[in-house]
Amino acid sequence: MSVATPPLDRKVIEQIVRQIVFANAGQTAAVPSLVVSISARHLHLTDEHVETLFGRGHALTPMKPLYQDGFYAAEETVMIVGPGRRRMLPSVRVLGPTRPATQVELAFTDAISLGIDAPVRLSGDIDGTPGCVLVGPAGVVELKQGVIRAARHVHMNVKDAEYYGVKNHDRINLRIESGPCSLVLEELIVRADATSKLEVHLDTDEGNAADLDHASRVELVKP
Amino acid sequence: MSVATPPLDRKVIEQIVRQIVFANAGQTAAVPSLVVSISARHLHLTDEHVETLFGRGHALTPMKPLYQDGFYAAEETVMIVGPGRRRMLPSVRVLGPTRPATQVELAFTDAISLGIDAPVRLSGDIDGTPGCVLVGPAGVVELKQGVIRAARHVHMNVKDAEYYGVKNHDRINLRIESGPCSLVLEELIVRADATSKLEVHLDTDEGNAADLDHASRVELVKP
Repeated sequence: MSVATPPLDRKVIEQIVRQIVFANAGQTAAVPSLVVSISARHLHLTDEHVETLFGRGHALTPMKPLYQDGFYAAEETVMIVGPGRRRMLPSVRVLGPTRPATQVELAFTDAISLGIDAPVRLSGDIDGTPGCVLVGPAGVVELKQGVIRAARHVHMNVKDAEYYGVKNHDRINLRIESGPCSLVLEELIVRADATSKLEVHLDTDEGNAADLDHASRVELVKP
Repeated sequence: MSVATPPLDRKVIEQIVRQIVFANAGQTAAVPSLVVSISARHLHLTDEHVETLFGRGHALTPMKPLYQDGFYAAEETVMIVGPGRRRMLPSVRVLGPTRPATQVELAFTDAISLGIDAPVRLSGDIDGTPGCVLVGPAGVVELKQGVIRAARHVHMNVKDAEYYGVKNHDRINLRIESGPCSLVLEELIVRADATSKLEVHLDTDEGNAADLDHASRVELVKP
Protein backbone atom coordinates (compact mmCIF):
# COMPACT_ATOMS: atom_id res chain seq x y z
CA MET A 1 0.00 0.00 0.00
CA SER A 2 1.33 3.43 -0.88
CA VAL A 3 0.24 6.88 0.15
CA ALA A 4 -2.86 8.02 -1.75
CA THR A 5 -2.21 9.29 -5.23
CA PRO A 6 -3.74 12.71 -5.68
CA PRO A 7 -7.30 12.56 -6.98
CA LEU A 8 -7.91 12.19 -10.71
CA ASP A 9 -4.34 11.20 -11.50
CA ARG A 10 -5.57 8.02 -13.14
CA LYS A 11 -7.83 10.02 -15.39
CA VAL A 12 -5.19 12.68 -15.93
CA ILE A 13 -2.89 10.03 -17.28
CA GLU A 14 -5.56 8.44 -19.42
CA GLN A 15 -6.74 11.68 -20.93
CA ILE A 16 -6.02 15.20 -19.88
CA VAL A 17 -9.28 16.53 -21.19
CA ARG A 18 -12.35 14.36 -21.05
CA GLN A 19 -14.95 15.25 -23.61
CA ILE A 20 -18.61 14.50 -23.83
CA VAL A 21 -20.33 15.18 -27.12
CA PHE A 22 -24.07 15.42 -27.26
CA ALA A 23 -25.65 14.89 -30.64
CA ASN A 24 -28.74 16.99 -30.97
CA ALA A 25 -30.93 14.11 -32.06
CA GLY A 26 -34.35 15.10 -33.26
CA GLN A 27 -33.43 18.76 -33.55
CA THR A 28 -32.86 20.74 -36.70
CA ALA A 29 -29.51 20.61 -38.46
CA ALA A 30 -29.00 24.26 -37.55
CA VAL A 31 -28.40 23.44 -33.86
CA PRO A 32 -24.64 23.41 -33.22
CA SER A 33 -23.25 20.21 -31.69
CA LEU A 34 -22.17 20.98 -28.14
CA VAL A 35 -19.03 19.47 -26.60
CA VAL A 36 -18.51 19.77 -22.84
CA SER A 37 -14.92 19.11 -21.76
CA ILE A 38 -13.47 18.71 -18.30
CA SER A 39 -9.97 20.09 -18.01
CA ALA A 40 -8.13 18.26 -15.26
CA ARG A 41 -5.43 20.30 -13.54
CA HIS A 42 -2.75 21.31 -16.03
CA LEU A 43 -0.27 24.05 -16.88
CA HIS A 44 0.92 26.12 -19.81
CA LEU A 45 4.62 27.00 -20.07
CA THR A 46 6.75 29.63 -21.76
CA ASP A 47 9.56 28.45 -24.06
CA GLU A 48 12.02 29.64 -21.44
CA HIS A 49 10.38 27.62 -18.65
CA VAL A 50 10.28 24.51 -20.87
CA GLU A 51 14.05 24.75 -21.18
CA THR A 52 14.57 25.42 -17.45
CA LEU A 53 12.40 22.45 -16.45
CA PHE A 54 13.30 19.93 -19.17
CA GLY A 55 16.75 20.99 -20.39
CA ARG A 56 18.40 23.38 -22.80
CA GLY A 57 16.97 23.18 -26.32
CA HIS A 58 14.04 21.03 -25.17
CA ALA A 59 10.69 21.46 -26.94
CA LEU A 60 7.33 19.98 -25.85
CA THR A 61 6.39 16.59 -27.32
CA PRO A 62 2.71 16.41 -28.36
CA MET A 63 1.00 13.32 -26.87
CA LYS A 64 -2.69 13.81 -27.62
CA PRO A 65 -4.48 16.51 -29.64
CA LEU A 66 -7.15 18.51 -27.82
CA TYR A 67 -10.54 19.26 -29.36
CA GLN A 68 -9.54 22.79 -30.41
CA ASP A 69 -7.27 22.64 -33.47
CA GLY A 70 -3.58 23.22 -32.79
CA PHE A 71 -3.68 22.47 -29.05
CA TYR A 72 -2.37 19.30 -27.41
CA ALA A 73 -1.57 17.51 -24.17
CA ALA A 74 2.21 17.10 -24.04
CA GLU A 75 4.22 14.09 -22.88
CA GLU A 76 5.80 16.35 -20.27
CA THR A 77 4.57 16.62 -16.68
CA VAL A 78 5.77 18.87 -13.85
CA MET A 79 5.69 18.61 -10.07
CA ILE A 80 3.80 21.52 -8.52
CA VAL A 81 4.83 22.47 -4.98
CA GLY A 82 2.67 24.68 -2.78
CA PRO A 83 3.70 27.46 -0.37
CA GLY A 84 5.88 26.39 2.53
CA ARG A 85 7.10 23.50 0.34
CA ARG A 86 5.09 21.06 2.41
CA ARG A 87 2.59 19.78 -0.14
CA MET A 88 2.80 18.94 -3.81
CA LEU A 89 1.09 17.39 -6.80
CA PRO A 90 3.64 15.00 -8.32
CA SER A 91 2.79 15.02 -12.02
CA VAL A 92 0.67 17.73 -13.57
CA ARG A 93 0.27 17.63 -17.34
CA VAL A 94 1.69 20.35 -19.59
CA LEU A 95 -0.54 21.54 -22.45
CA GLY A 96 0.95 22.92 -25.65
CA PRO A 97 1.81 24.95 -27.54
CA THR A 98 3.89 27.24 -25.33
CA ARG A 99 2.59 30.66 -24.30
CA PRO A 100 3.88 34.15 -23.47
CA ALA A 101 3.28 33.50 -19.73
CA THR A 102 3.33 30.36 -17.62
CA GLN A 103 -0.04 29.56 -16.04
CA VAL A 104 -1.22 26.76 -13.72
CA GLU A 105 -4.93 25.86 -13.83
CA LEU A 106 -6.29 23.98 -10.80
CA ALA A 107 -9.70 23.02 -9.48
CA PHE A 108 -10.37 24.36 -5.97
CA THR A 109 -9.99 20.83 -4.62
CA ASP A 110 -6.45 20.74 -6.07
CA ALA A 111 -5.63 24.27 -4.89
CA ILE A 112 -6.82 23.52 -1.34
CA SER A 113 -4.70 20.35 -1.31
CA LEU A 114 -1.65 22.53 -2.08
CA GLY A 115 -2.60 25.28 0.37
CA ILE A 116 -3.10 27.82 -2.44
CA ASP A 117 -6.01 30.25 -2.46
CA ALA A 118 -6.51 30.28 -6.25
CA PRO A 119 -8.62 33.12 -7.68
CA VAL A 120 -11.15 32.50 -10.46
CA ARG A 121 -9.74 34.10 -13.61
CA LEU A 122 -10.12 33.93 -17.34
CA SER A 123 -7.08 32.28 -18.92
CA GLY A 124 -4.29 34.83 -19.44
CA ASP A 125 -5.53 37.22 -16.73
CA ILE A 126 -2.93 36.36 -14.07
CA ASP A 127 -1.83 39.73 -12.63
CA GLY A 128 -1.66 39.49 -8.84
CA THR A 129 -2.45 35.76 -8.69
CA PRO A 130 -0.49 33.42 -6.37
CA GLY A 131 2.64 31.62 -7.48
CA CYS A 132 4.08 28.18 -6.76
CA VAL A 133 7.21 26.14 -7.44
CA LEU A 134 7.49 23.99 -10.57
CA VAL A 135 9.93 21.09 -10.51
CA GLY A 136 11.03 19.33 -13.69
CA PRO A 137 13.69 16.73 -14.43
CA ALA A 138 16.24 19.41 -15.39
CA GLY A 139 15.42 22.32 -13.12
CA VAL A 140 13.12 24.38 -10.94
CA VAL A 141 10.97 27.46 -11.66
CA GLU A 142 9.89 29.76 -8.85
CA LEU A 143 6.68 31.06 -10.35
CA LYS A 144 5.82 34.49 -8.90
CA GLN A 145 2.22 34.43 -10.18
CA GLY A 146 0.03 32.37 -12.50
CA VAL A 147 -1.98 29.91 -10.37
CA ILE A 148 -5.69 30.25 -11.13
CA ARG A 149 -8.95 28.42 -11.19
CA ALA A 150 -10.00 28.90 -14.81
CA ALA A 151 -13.34 30.68 -15.02
CA ARG A 152 -15.89 28.40 -16.70
CA HIS A 153 -16.21 29.39 -20.35
CA VAL A 154 -17.41 28.32 -23.76
CA HIS A 155 -15.44 28.56 -26.99
CA MET A 156 -17.40 29.15 -30.18
CA ASN A 157 -17.09 30.63 -33.63
CA VAL A 158 -19.04 33.60 -34.88
CA LYS A 159 -21.75 31.41 -36.46
CA ASP A 160 -22.38 29.66 -33.13
CA ALA A 161 -22.46 33.06 -31.40
CA GLU A 162 -25.07 34.22 -33.88
CA TYR A 163 -27.12 31.06 -33.21
CA TYR A 164 -27.09 31.68 -29.45
CA GLY A 165 -27.54 35.45 -29.81
CA VAL A 166 -24.36 36.26 -27.89
CA LYS A 167 -21.05 38.00 -28.56
CA ASN A 168 -17.51 37.67 -27.24
CA HIS A 169 -17.34 38.08 -23.42
CA ASP A 170 -21.10 37.77 -22.93
CA ARG A 171 -22.35 35.32 -20.29
CA ILE A 172 -24.44 32.24 -20.88
CA ASN A 173 -25.75 29.37 -18.72
CA LEU A 174 -25.05 25.65 -19.15
CA ARG A 175 -27.68 23.21 -17.97
CA ILE A 176 -26.48 19.65 -17.38
CA GLU A 177 -29.22 17.05 -17.01
CA SER A 178 -27.69 14.29 -14.95
CA GLY A 179 -30.24 12.61 -12.67
CA PRO A 180 -29.65 13.49 -9.01
CA CYS A 181 -26.59 15.58 -9.99
CA SER A 182 -28.39 17.87 -12.48
CA LEU A 183 -27.41 21.53 -12.30
CA VAL A 184 -27.23 24.84 -14.10
CA LEU A 185 -23.82 26.51 -14.24
CA GLU A 186 -24.29 30.25 -14.61
CA GLU A 187 -21.87 32.91 -15.84
CA LEU A 188 -20.03 30.91 -18.52
CA ILE A 189 -17.89 33.43 -20.38
CA VAL A 190 -18.40 33.38 -24.15
CA ARG A 191 -15.10 33.30 -26.05
CA ALA A 192 -16.11 33.79 -29.64
CA ASP A 193 -13.72 34.08 -32.57
CA ALA A 194 -13.57 33.17 -36.25
CA THR A 195 -12.34 29.60 -35.97
CA SER A 196 -12.97 27.97 -32.56
CA LYS A 197 -15.13 24.88 -32.25
CA LEU A 198 -18.13 25.00 -29.92
CA GLU A 199 -16.81 23.63 -26.61
CA VAL A 200 -17.49 24.29 -22.93
CA HIS A 201 -14.50 24.06 -20.57
CA LEU A 202 -15.24 23.03 -16.98
CA ASP A 203 -12.86 21.92 -14.25
CA THR A 204 -12.99 18.66 -12.30
CA ASP A 205 -14.95 20.14 -9.38
CA GLU A 206 -17.68 21.32 -11.74
CA GLY A 207 -17.61 18.07 -13.75
CA ASN A 208 -17.79 15.96 -10.58
CA ALA A 209 -20.55 18.09 -9.05
CA ALA A 210 -22.61 17.39 -12.19
CA ASP A 211 -21.48 13.76 -12.61
CA LEU A 212 -20.87 14.68 -16.23
CA ASP A 213 -19.93 11.10 -17.14
CA HIS A 214 -23.55 10.10 -16.65
CA ALA A 215 -25.18 13.22 -18.06
CA SER A 216 -28.11 12.67 -20.43
CA ARG A 217 -28.30 16.16 -21.91
CA VAL A 218 -26.37 19.43 -21.98
CA GLU A 219 -27.72 22.73 -23.19
CA LEU A 220 -26.55 26.34 -23.42
CA VAL A 221 -29.28 28.70 -22.25
CA LYS A 222 -29.25 32.48 -22.48
CA PRO A 223 -29.92 33.89 -19.01
CA MET B 1 8.78 18.01 1.37
CA SER B 2 6.35 15.11 1.83
CA VAL B 3 3.96 13.44 -0.53
CA ALA B 4 0.79 15.48 -1.06
CA THR B 5 -1.74 15.22 1.71
CA PRO B 6 -5.14 14.33 0.29
CA PRO B 7 -7.23 17.37 -0.56
CA LEU B 8 -9.24 19.06 2.18
CA ASP B 9 -7.51 17.29 5.04
CA ARG B 10 -6.62 20.65 6.55
CA LYS B 11 -10.25 21.68 6.48
CA VAL B 12 -11.40 18.26 7.60
CA ILE B 13 -9.33 18.64 10.71
CA GLU B 14 -10.47 22.19 11.34
CA GLN B 15 -14.13 21.42 10.90
CA ILE B 16 -15.76 18.38 9.46
CA VAL B 17 -18.78 20.28 8.32
CA ARG B 18 -18.38 23.84 7.13
CA GLN B 19 -21.52 25.88 7.48
CA ILE B 20 -22.58 29.07 5.85
CA VAL B 21 -25.60 30.81 7.31
CA PHE B 22 -27.39 33.43 5.30
CA ALA B 23 -29.52 35.80 7.29
CA ASN B 24 -32.51 36.88 5.29
CA ALA B 25 -31.89 40.56 5.82
CA GLY B 26 -34.67 42.79 4.64
CA GLN B 27 -37.09 39.93 4.33
CA THR B 28 -40.03 39.14 6.55
CA ALA B 29 -39.54 37.24 9.78
CA ALA B 30 -41.47 34.34 8.28
CA VAL B 31 -38.61 33.44 5.90
CA PRO B 32 -36.67 30.54 7.45
CA SER B 33 -32.94 31.10 7.89
CA LEU B 34 -31.11 28.84 5.46
CA VAL B 35 -27.88 27.05 6.40
CA VAL B 36 -25.82 25.42 3.63
CA SER B 37 -23.27 22.93 4.94
CA ILE B 38 -20.49 21.14 3.11
CA SER B 39 -19.90 17.64 4.41
CA ALA B 40 -16.30 16.69 3.77
CA ARG B 41 -15.73 12.95 3.30
CA HIS B 42 -16.73 11.05 6.44
CA LEU B 43 -18.16 7.79 7.68
CA HIS B 44 -20.77 6.43 10.03
CA LEU B 45 -20.03 3.25 12.02
CA THR B 46 -21.99 0.53 13.76
CA ASP B 47 -21.22 -0.14 17.44
CA GLU B 48 -19.62 -3.41 16.40
CA HIS B 49 -17.31 -1.74 13.87
CA VAL B 50 -16.32 0.92 16.45
CA GLU B 51 -15.11 -1.89 18.68
CA THR B 52 -13.33 -3.73 15.85
CA LEU B 53 -11.53 -0.58 14.71
CA PHE B 54 -10.82 1.10 18.06
CA GLY B 55 -10.83 -1.72 20.60
CA ARG B 56 -13.20 -3.75 22.72
CA GLY B 57 -15.58 -1.61 24.77
CA HIS B 58 -14.62 1.55 22.87
CA ALA B 59 -17.26 4.22 22.31
CA LEU B 60 -16.98 7.28 20.05
CA THR B 61 -15.71 10.51 21.66
CA PRO B 62 -17.67 13.59 20.52
CA MET B 63 -15.31 16.34 19.30
CA LYS B 64 -17.60 18.95 17.74
CA PRO B 65 -21.40 19.14 17.59
CA LEU B 66 -22.96 19.32 14.12
CA TYR B 67 -25.73 21.75 13.27
CA GLN B 68 -28.45 19.12 13.63
CA ASP B 69 -29.10 18.42 17.33
CA GLY B 70 -27.62 15.18 18.64
CA PHE B 71 -25.08 14.66 15.86
CA TYR B 72 -21.35 15.23 16.18
CA ALA B 73 -17.93 14.85 14.57
CA ALA B 74 -16.01 12.32 16.65
CA GLU B 75 -12.36 12.41 17.68
CA GLU B 76 -11.92 9.11 15.85
CA THR B 77 -10.65 8.84 12.27
CA VAL B 78 -10.25 5.78 10.06
CA MET B 79 -8.00 4.94 7.11
CA ILE B 80 -10.04 4.06 4.03
CA VAL B 81 -8.37 1.73 1.53
CA GLY B 82 -9.65 1.30 -2.00
CA PRO B 83 -9.91 -1.85 -4.12
CA GLY B 84 -6.63 -3.57 -4.93
CA ARG B 85 -5.23 -2.06 -1.70
CA ARG B 86 -3.14 0.38 -3.73
CA ARG B 87 -4.67 3.71 -2.73
CA MET B 88 -6.00 5.10 0.51
CA LEU B 89 -7.22 8.15 2.38
CA PRO B 90 -5.28 8.20 5.65
CA SER B 91 -7.68 9.85 8.09
CA VAL B 92 -11.36 10.12 7.38
CA ARG B 93 -13.52 11.54 10.15
CA VAL B 94 -16.15 9.42 11.93
CA LEU B 95 -19.50 11.10 12.64
CA GLY B 96 -21.65 10.06 15.57
CA PRO B 97 -23.80 8.67 16.95
CA THR B 98 -23.40 5.09 15.71
CA ARG B 99 -25.86 3.63 13.20
CA PRO B 100 -27.40 0.28 12.27
CA ALA B 101 -25.12 0.09 9.18
CA THR B 102 -21.66 1.42 8.43
CA GLN B 103 -21.61 3.93 5.58
CA VAL B 104 -18.79 5.88 3.91
CA GLU B 105 -19.71 9.20 2.22
CA LEU B 106 -17.26 10.51 -0.37
CA ALA B 107 -17.25 13.24 -3.00
CA PHE B 108 -16.58 11.91 -6.51
CA THR B 109 -13.11 13.45 -6.36
CA ASP B 110 -12.37 11.33 -3.27
CA ALA B 111 -13.95 8.20 -4.74
CA ILE B 112 -11.96 8.53 -7.98
CA SER B 113 -8.76 8.97 -5.95
CA LEU B 114 -9.50 5.60 -4.29
CA GLY B 115 -10.55 3.89 -7.52
CA ILE B 116 -14.13 3.45 -6.31
CA ASP B 117 -17.14 4.06 -8.58
CA ALA B 118 -19.43 5.47 -5.88
CA PRO B 119 -23.15 5.63 -6.70
CA VAL B 120 -25.26 8.64 -5.71
CA ARG B 121 -27.57 7.49 -2.92
CA LEU B 122 -29.65 8.92 -0.14
CA SER B 123 -28.06 8.17 3.23
CA GLY B 124 -29.05 4.69 4.43
CA ASP B 125 -29.80 3.33 0.95
CA ILE B 126 -26.66 1.23 0.51
CA ASP B 127 -27.85 -2.07 -0.99
CA GLY B 128 -25.54 -3.10 -3.81
CA THR B 129 -23.05 -0.24 -3.29
CA PRO B 130 -19.28 -0.86 -3.38
CA GLY B 131 -17.28 -1.70 -0.29
CA CYS B 132 -13.80 -0.80 0.91
CA VAL B 133 -11.41 -1.61 3.74
CA LEU B 134 -11.44 0.41 6.96
CA VAL B 135 -8.29 0.42 9.08
CA GLY B 136 -8.32 1.61 12.67
CA PRO B 137 -5.74 1.50 15.45
CA ALA B 138 -7.15 -1.76 16.83
CA GLY B 139 -8.36 -3.62 13.77
CA VAL B 140 -9.62 -3.83 10.22
CA VAL B 141 -13.13 -4.01 8.75
CA GLU B 142 -13.69 -5.46 5.27
CA LEU B 143 -16.79 -3.50 4.33
CA LYS B 144 -18.85 -5.42 1.75
CA GLN B 145 -20.98 -2.41 0.82
CA GLY B 146 -21.66 1.13 2.04
CA VAL B 147 -19.55 3.53 -0.04
CA ILE B 148 -21.75 6.24 -1.57
CA ARG B 149 -21.79 9.79 -2.77
CA ALA B 150 -24.56 11.26 -0.64
CA ALA B 151 -27.36 12.65 -2.80
CA ARG B 152 -27.67 16.39 -2.22
CA HIS B 153 -30.51 17.03 0.20
CA VAL B 154 -32.08 19.54 2.54
CA HIS B 155 -33.22 18.85 6.10
CA MET B 156 -36.19 20.81 7.37
CA ASN B 157 -39.03 20.64 9.83
CA VAL B 158 -42.68 20.56 8.90
CA LYS B 159 -43.07 24.33 9.30
CA ASP B 160 -40.24 24.95 6.82
CA ALA B 161 -41.79 22.40 4.46
CA GLU B 162 -45.05 24.29 4.64
CA TYR B 163 -43.25 27.56 3.90
CA TYR B 164 -41.63 26.10 0.77
CA GLY B 165 -44.75 24.17 -0.26
CA VAL B 166 -42.99 20.81 -0.27
CA LYS B 167 -43.26 17.50 1.58
CA ASN B 168 -40.84 14.74 2.58
CA HIS B 169 -38.98 13.29 -0.45
CA ASP B 170 -40.05 16.09 -2.81
CA ARG B 171 -37.31 17.78 -4.88
CA ILE B 172 -36.27 21.40 -4.68
CA ASN B 173 -33.54 23.55 -6.29
CA LEU B 174 -30.78 25.47 -4.52
CA ARG B 175 -29.44 28.60 -6.20
CA ILE B 176 -26.04 29.78 -4.99
CA GLU B 177 -25.07 33.30 -6.05
CA SER B 178 -21.31 33.33 -6.05
CA GLY B 179 -19.90 35.60 -8.77
CA PRO B 180 -18.30 33.59 -11.60
CA CYS B 181 -19.09 30.34 -9.74
CA SER B 182 -22.85 30.91 -9.41
CA LEU B 183 -25.02 27.85 -10.03
CA VAL B 184 -28.34 26.16 -9.46
CA LEU B 185 -28.22 22.68 -7.95
CA GLU B 186 -31.34 20.79 -8.98
CA GLU B 187 -32.95 17.71 -7.44
CA LEU B 188 -32.19 18.36 -3.76
CA ILE B 189 -34.15 15.75 -1.84
CA VAL B 190 -36.39 17.21 0.86
CA ARG B 191 -36.00 15.39 4.20
CA ALA B 192 -38.74 16.84 6.34
CA ASP B 193 -39.57 15.74 9.86
CA ALA B 194 -40.87 17.22 13.10
CA THR B 195 -37.61 18.48 14.55
CA SER B 196 -34.81 19.00 11.99
CA LYS B 197 -33.29 22.43 11.45
CA LEU B 198 -33.34 23.89 7.94
CA GLU B 199 -29.99 22.83 6.45
CA VAL B 200 -28.74 21.89 2.98
CA HIS B 201 -26.05 19.19 2.82
CA LEU B 202 -23.64 19.36 -0.12
CA ASP B 203 -20.36 17.56 -0.66
CA THR B 204 -16.98 19.14 -1.34
CA ASP B 205 -17.26 18.83 -5.13
CA GLU B 206 -20.53 20.74 -5.09
CA GLY B 207 -19.25 23.29 -2.57
CA ASN B 208 -16.06 23.85 -4.56
CA ALA B 209 -17.90 24.10 -7.88
CA ALA B 210 -19.96 26.92 -6.34
CA ASP B 211 -17.07 28.49 -4.36
CA LEU B 212 -19.47 28.48 -1.42
CA ASP B 213 -16.97 30.30 0.81
CA HIS B 214 -17.48 33.42 -1.28
CA ALA B 215 -21.20 33.05 -1.94
CA SER B 216 -23.29 36.18 -1.51
CA ARG B 217 -26.72 34.56 -1.44
CA VAL B 218 -28.34 31.13 -1.24
CA GLU B 219 -31.96 30.39 -1.96
CA LEU B 220 -34.23 27.34 -2.16
CA VAL B 221 -36.43 27.53 -5.24
CA LYS B 222 -39.30 25.21 -6.11
CA PRO B 223 -38.71 23.85 -9.64
